[in-house]
Order: sequence, then structure tokens, then C-alpha cells
Amino acid sequence: MKRVVIIGGGFAGLYAARSLGRAGARVTIIDRRNHHVFQPLLYQVATASLSPADIAAPIRHIVGRRSNTDVLLAEAVSVDPHAREVVLRDGRVGYDYLIVACGVTHSYFGNDQWAPFAPGLKSIEDATEVRRRFLLAFEAAERETNAQSRRAKLTFVVVGGGPTGVELAGAMAEIAHRSLPADFRAIDTTTARIILVEGEARILTAFPETLSDRARHDLERLGVEVRLNARVTSVDANGVMIGADRIDAACVLWAAGVAAEPLGRSLGAECDRAGRVKVNADLSVPGRPEIFVAGDLALVVDRRTGQPVPGVAPAAMQMGRYAGNAVRGLLSGRGMPGKPFRYLDKGIVATIGRARAVACMRGLCFAGIPAWLLWAGIHIFFLIGFRNRLLVMIQWAWEWIVFQRGARLITGNSRVVLHDPGHDSRQS
Amino acid sequence: MKRVVIIGGGFAGLYAARSLGRAGARVTIIDRRNHHVFQPLLYQVATASLSPADIAAPIRHIVGRRSNTDVLLAEAVSVDPHAREVVLRDGRVGYDYLIVACGVTHSYFGNDQWAPFAPGLKSIEDATEVRRRFLLAFEAAERETNAQSRRAKLTFVVVGGGPTGVELAGAMAEIAHRSLPADFRAIDTTTARIILVEGEARILTAFPETLSDRARHDLERLGVEVRLNARVTSVDANGVMIGADRIDAACVLWAAGVAAEPLGRSLGAECDRAGRVKVNADLSVPGRPEIFVAGDLALVVDRRTGQPVPGVAPAAMQMGRYAGNAVRGLLSGRGMPGKPFRYLDKGIVATIGRARAVACMRGLCFAGIPAWLLWAGIHIFFLIGFRNRLLVMIQWAWEWIVFQRGARLITGNSRVVLHDPGHDSRQS
Repeated sequence: MKRVVIIGGGFAGLYAARSLGRAGARVTIIDRRNHHVFQPLLYQVATASLSPADIAAPIRHIVGRRSNTDVLLAEAVSVDPHAREVVLRDGRVGYDYLIVACGVTHSYFGNDQWAPFAPGLKSIEDATEVRRRFLLAFEAAERETNAQSRRAKLTFVVVGGGPTGVELAGAMAEIAHRSLPADFRAIDTTTARIILVEGEARILTAFPETLSDRARHDLERLGVEVRLNARVTSVDANGVMIGADRIDAACVLWAAGVAAEPLGRSLGAECDRAGRVKVNADLSVPGRPEIFVAGDLALVVDRRTGQPVPGVAPAAMQMGRYAGNAVRGLLSGRGMPGKPFRYLDKGIVATIGRARAVACMRGLCFAGIPAWLLWAGIHIFFLIGFRNRLLVMIQWAWEWIVFQRGARLITGNSRVVLHDPGHDSRQS
Repeated sequence: MKRVVIIGGGFAGLYAARSLGRAGARVTIIDRRNHHVFQPLLYQVATASLSPADIAAPIRHIVGRRSNTDVLLAEAVSVDPHAREVVLRDGRVGYDYLIVACGVTHSYFGNDQWAPFAPGLKSIEDATEVRRRFLLAFEAAERETNAQSRRAKLTFVVVGGGPTGVELAGAMAEIAHRSLPADFRAIDTTTARIILVEGEARILTAFPETLSDRARHDLERLGVEVRLNARVTSVDANGVMIGADRIDAACVLWAAGVAAEPLGRSLGAECDRAGRVKVNADLSVPGRPEIFVAGDLALVVDRRTGQPVPGVAPAAMQMGRYAGNAVRGLLSGRGMPGKPFRYLDKGIVATIGRARAVACMRGLCFAGIPAWLLWAGIHIFFLIGFRNRLLVMIQWAWEWIVFQRGARLITGNSRVVLHDPGHDSRQS
């Protein structure tokens, strides 16, 4: 029996596996994590609305019913196209057909030394780390007696005005201004400063200009400072430089840039600067008809717009389905797919806070509560598993009513030293 | 205004703070974690039934409404009774009255070198680590081709036949035998061996002998091997020695022994071998009427039974309330409490698995579904916060129906190497 290997258990990988469910082949999904993460809601874990298990599910469980599909918890480091093998950190796996869908991560634009000071948001671990830093900042401020240091501890910088940055900044402002004030004694959490930094002239550049303006307006009403045409030129443990402007901030979060998984470069195809693989119109790798690339890692031009297909969840699902079907055609001897991949743009939506969102669908653009309801509906619908849908709905409803976040746990660091004993080490 | 300091945000500390809510004093709770953990359900986080946020809540949020109470996220390392100050890792806090309620942890009976191989279960971090090891063992077994190594990877040892050990072993057996089989291809998870090791002649020694036997019988029906009169004499990365008997096991969990927080020894009072502080009948420290000890850390004899008050949640709540009231009496000039602390034993209950439990209340002992319903009712009732109660109920109901665990995430270790490349590094 032929073996199809899928690298990555994200949207593209899972949709490819689903297309191959009834194919007469052995399908293996390789992922270095045991769970699929619903990435569009990661920011809600980071901002203490949801628990990790609400937006993640074991890949094994998702594919459980398909007996031809198995899951390998392993780290794929490269592909050996000549031997037709995937090289793992601890072994090799042979394939007849390969679908590479290992996605992208954030990029520090060549400044990887910033990473420890400005975590990104791609995995569950990232999200709990962001949550830890965000909540610890208030704890540290509560114990700080020096006014200037306290100000810095209550300053939060989010770099990148795309959907993730906007969602993070909006949620952080709501927490600081609405959820936390009653819990602290020494500090007024409503004085927290949340700064969103965007290099372009507007945020949410994928949306029309009117909606970008609306989103900026909504953010500003929530208390977020939006800085446009602004570039971060350095990041350290105590803050950032924005151009020549120094901002002291205890908590800097990174939501900018795209860097493809390095594995893509081992396929022997041309890659763009971010490392995305330039694939044929049928998503196959040039000269390697047995290898397909799907999801964020694939660089393919949308024929209608002339633009690259965007790195969003619906595009990953569509590419995964297309690649799975293409492999099924090859397995059954029908040859390569006759029609190229076409991205069906179903619309885009971004949320800014409680009942605030912007959306564009089929030429129609709107904002406010209708957009937010659309956002909530879409995200609930695509959550994997009925149980998750129900739990997330209840938690959102609860939060909506009482303005409280249910998952405000700081975990992962058992020894806490918040207070700098250098100045004023005595409290009375 | 007088200052009352409470060390520890567990049941004893929170109930003490509640008693002091309307006292004319400033109350400070010190805890090294930002959250209160509902310890009786920690094992459900470890066995992937619940998420950390379901059984934990920020201490700040719990005391939020009481404006005289503040919370300090800090690690208390000792008490300086002469200066009347609590020594933190990063500062000092003065007090007029002190309630020490920092609890106990598990003990390796002087073999602390076993700790890395056999994690215990006292914090959220412990629980996610136990979950990680338990779930990773199946992943590793799935990739293992050597039959003997695979056997070892599917062998789980739980040390300690108290309520935590019994609950862990029962839940692990249910997961291996009921939840996981459909998800794996190469291994049969129903062949997993779960061994519960108890040093005494029976498990659940706090219960009457008939119920201990019933619990053992229930565990065996779930597929757990119960070893009585058995002592673990060594633990390493690959397994345990039980007496002279070697058991190869990839996953060893520790649910035995009691060791008090070392801070208790700095109070200047006599301590027992485990480090618990021998207090007066009114929970005050001998010679230090301004210091009280409450919860698991306090060693106080129950006048009715002549036995020490057990280290269970209801006793901690009662002691916390008593100590808080005692301090309130001192603050108002009424002096030390007239009546000694009396433990009101409301009964004990332990669960063994889905709809299996044993319970003793007011002389009445019973088992089976009535005991399980009692267990579920009590635990739901005492969960902090309505939201948690609702979510936990839904998740239990869901699990009950579909036999699936919702929180099967392996987190915390992003680089996975399960397969030993030494033998058979190639899969085909």
C-alpha cells in the first residue's frame, strides 16, 4: 500500500488528511505537538479568556475514526526528496507522496535577539507565556513603590497591527480597564498604557481603508494608543525604541512578520525572502510532482487578484483539501489535477474587543455588533469538536455578562521575584 | 491600623481572610502563586478531564470585594518572630498578627533524588507535568518497535494508596482502557498496566476496612494492579524497585508522604518529623500568641478521637475560620478565644472512577453511585466561583456520556524526541 505523509497537523494538514480518508493508502500525519491548535483564538488564551484545551484538540482524536490514518508525534527537520524520506530528529519516514503543511512563525526581521523580550503567539506555550507576562506586570506594579518604574510596569507594547496585534491590544485594554480594577489596591489598572505599533500608514491592511479607520477608532476608544508609520528599532528587557523614541515597558508582545519553517528550503524549490515555497498552480513543487505544499508555507498567486493567496485559515483549509484530492487522483491513476488551485475568498473579519469587530464579505463591508456576531459565529463553527464549541460559547457569554476573565492563571514559573530588592526592599 | 498577614492562599488562608473581612485591620495574603488551587480536583487536571483554569482562580479575584484585604504575589521564606516580620525572597513584611497557612507537600521519605523521576501532585504545574508524562508514554509506545521497551512504556506506577493515588490510578485505567483505544494504530492501549503501590495492608486507610476492600475491588475491576504491604525502595528514569522486584515503567507518579513547608520551622515551635508545627489547642504558637497556624501545616490533636486532625480540605477551612475569628477577637480587645479549636468531621469521600466512590458520613458508610453523586455534589459546591462550577459540571457530563477526555494536551516541551535512534531508527 502506498504511503502518504503529511507534515503538520494545522488546518492544511488536517483538511488534506480528511480528503485522503477513503483513499487506498496509508496516511501518516507528523507533528511535533500532539494537538491541533485553533490559531485564530490563541490570543484569547493569551488574554485569559479561554483555557488551552478550549482551542486545541489531540490530532489523534481528530483523525481517530479514519483507520488508514496514523499520527506520529515527532519533529520533522527536513525532507530528502531523492530518497523520498522525511528526516526526523530521531529517525526517518519514507513516503510515496508528501504534503508539506508545517506553516510559518513570526519573524523579528533578522533581530532574533529580540525574541526573549518580545514573545510571539503561535503555540499554546507562547500563549501561556504571554498571559504570564501580561498578568505578572500588574503584580509587579502593585509592589513597586518607585513611580517611574511602576509606570513602566504598566506599559504594554504590541508590535504589529494585523488581526493578532489588534485583537491582543483590544483585549489587553479591556482587561486593564474593565476586569482588573477591583482586584488591586496600590495601583489603578485603568492607567495602564497599551501601545500598538504598526509600520504601515494604517492597521489591518487587508481591509479597506474605512474599516482600518473604524478599527483604529474603536481601539482608541478602548484606551489603546495606536502608532502608525512607526517602526521598532530595538527591544530589550526594559522596553523598546520606536524610531528615536524610547518607551519603558515591562511587557512587549510580537505580532509582526512571517518566517516559514526552515524545512521548506530542503524541498529544492525556490523560496521567497520569508522562506515560503514557490509552488506550481496545482500546489506541487516544481520538478517534484509527488510533493505538494499547502497552507501558510505555500506561496501561490491568486489568479483573480494577482496577489499571493493570504496566510489565513480558510486558505489553508482550501489548499489542504486541494492537495489531498490531488494526491488521491495520483493514487487512483488519474494523474495530476486538471484545474489549478483557486482561492475562494469568503471574506475577512477581525475583532477589536467586546462586541466590536470589522468584516468584509463578498464586497460588503461592515463593523460593530453585526461584524462581531459574524466573527463569533464563524469561530465557534470552526472550533474542532462539539464540546469545545459549547464550552467556548458559555465562557464568552459569561465574560460578556460579568466582564471577568476566567483563566487568569499565572503558571510556569514557580519562583517569583517581582520586587527589585535594590531600592526600597522593605514594606511596612 | 493593625496589620494581619496570612501566609498562603489555600483553603485555610482564604477562610481566615474571609473571617477577617469586616475586622478593622489591614489584611495581607502572601502567596507565591497568583491563584488558589482547588487541590481535591488536581488529579482531574493531571488526567486530562479538566483544564487548569477550571479548578483554580486568582486569589485577588476571590478576595476582590473586601477592600481591607490585599494580596502580595511573593515567596515567603521564613518568619522573624522577634522583629514581627515575614521574610520574603525579595523583601520583608511587618505584621501585628500572623496566620501561617502555607500547607504541606509530598515527601520522598528522604530520597529527594527520586523527585525528577516520580513527580507529585500539589500545584497546577505538577498536574500539567503529570499529564504530559502520562500522555507522552502512549506516544512513545506507539513508535516503539522493541516489544520489551514498549511494555515498559505502557507500564504506569502510582506510589501511595491514599485518595490521590486511588483517584489517579482509577482515572488512568479508565483513560487507557476506554478513552484511548481508537486513537492508536500500533499499540493496544487496553494492555497498559497500571500498578498502585501501598505500604500498608490496605488502601484508603482513613476509611473502614470494608470500604478499603470495596475500593480495591473497584480498582481491580478497572484493571489496576493493587500491591499492598509493598514499599518502593528505589526509583530511576526507567522504573522502580518494589522490595526486590524490578518493574520497568516509563511513568512513575508520587502520591505518598507529607512534608511541611520549611517556613514552619522558623516559628520557633516544636515540629513533628514531617515538619508540622505543634500548636496550642487554640492554634496559636506556644509563647507566641500573635501567631496562629492553620491548615495542613498545623499539628493539633482532635480531642474526641485523640488523633491528629487530618490534613483534609474541610479541616483546613475550619482551622482558617477559627484562626481568623481568633485574630478578630484579639483586634477587638476580647483576648484569646475561650474555646479550643474543635474539628467537626463531616465525613470523607474518595472516588475511584466513573460512578465509583466510597463515602463515610456521620457513621454511615456506603459505596457505588450514591457515594459518587455525593462526591460530585460536594466538589462542585466547593469549587470557587459559579462559572467554574458550571463548566466543570458540563465537562463531567460530557465525559460521562462519550468517555472522552477533553484536555488531552501535551504542553511544555516543544522539542520532542521519543524514539531512541540507537535501535531501529528507520520506519518504513
